[in-house]
Amino acid sequence: MIGYPNCKKKSTAPSKANSQSRRGMPLEDEINTTNRYYLDQDRAAVYKKPIPINIVKVQYQSRQTAKITEAYYQMPSTTDYNGIYQSQYLDFEAKQTDSKTSMPMRMIHPHQLEHLRRVIRYGGVAFLIIRFTYYDQTFYVPAAVMLAEYDAGVKTIKHEWFTTNGFLIPYRYLAPVDYLSVIDQLKLEDKLQ
Amino acid sequence: MIGYPNCKKKSTAPSKANSQSRRGMPLEDEINTTNRYYLDQDRAAVYKKPIPINIVKVQYQSRQTAKITEAYYQMPSTTDYNGIYQSQYLDFEAKQTDSKTSMPMRMIHPHQLEHLRRVIRYGGVAFLIIRFTYYDQTFYVPAAVMLAEYDAGVKTIKHEWFTTNGFLIPYRYLAPVDYLSVIDQLKLEDKLQ
Repeated sequence: MIGYPNCKKKSTAPSKANSQSRRGMPLEDEINTTNRYYLDQDRAAVYKKPIPINIVKVQYQSRQTAKITEAYYQMPSTTDYNGIYQSQYLDFEAKQTDSKTSMPMRMIHPHQLEHLRRVIRYGGVAFLIIRFTYYDQTFYVPAAVMLAEYDAGVKTIKHEWFTTNGFLIPYRYLAPVDYLSVIDQLKLEDKLQ
Repeated sequence: MIGYPNCKKKSTAPSKANSQSRRGMPLEDEINTTNRYYLDQDRAAVYKKPIPINIVKVQYQSRQTAKITEAYYQMPSTTDYNGIYQSQYLDFEAKQTDSKTSMPMRMIHPHQLEHLRRVIRYGGVAFLIIRFTYYDQTFYVPAAVMLAEYDAGVKTIKHEWFTTNGFLIPYRYLAPVDYLSVIDQLKLEDKLQ
């Protein structure tokens, strides 16, 4: 159940791997910063979807304020991020791993991979952002190549695989995970799926 | 503050207007049913975004289950729905009113209108779904025409305005708010913004 709030906290706790990284800001925060920058620059509108929550009890203190007193996390049905850039629909999931060697496929939920498959079928730009915190490397991985591994039953993807099948996302101060620069490059080379 | 969970409950409570309608299912539920049908038919992937919630306290009962014991509703920064259809990015907000005469502009938050303006600028399909429960009519309104009213300082939009500026969304049993049929028609006529 990696990727859930309780687990996420764990993976962002200080660790040997993290302390090696130049920065150490969690991937999610860096992507949010990047998306805010894209908004400010009037380039793209990409948002993280809120975590779906099943609300059981609410106390109404007044007409305006409601306090939720019992609620539970729900399984998200799609990926975490989507939006629009240059008339194109973007959809992606982001994960980070502390491992030096590989990323386990189970880090990405099967229904998220199926959602990305659907996005490709409908003509959207589907990808994954995978960070190896140990190497301080963040990769843009087209969903199609990840799906090929998944369909072949691959359970673990080696770090080397990312260096040949993914694209390193440049770090910029104002856009720490500047994934649009990768999309721009792929578009130029007519390689954007 | 219309459109918030505590207020939403009020507007879907039984009322004279609602009891006149053929159906009476809340608009949100009908749109969700429609979106599920589109998914089943492999036509489009459109989802309602979860309501953003600010989580204050969480009890961890075990590694797997977390109980949220204090949380508050947050202001959503965008519209409620977005997705992809035939390579196009769709983005819309949905509201229903019990009024016989008009819809107050304040039902739609200014930041949601600004978000829709941005979506148009980036080449997406931006619209509103407005239901008059009294007449049991649900309108597709291109965001551009609604923004023109908003920019002109209009505070209340008459029901008649919708019949001339909007497009009636057909009701179908499996797709109760079949908005894609309006998009298809607008596309055919080359009128899709």
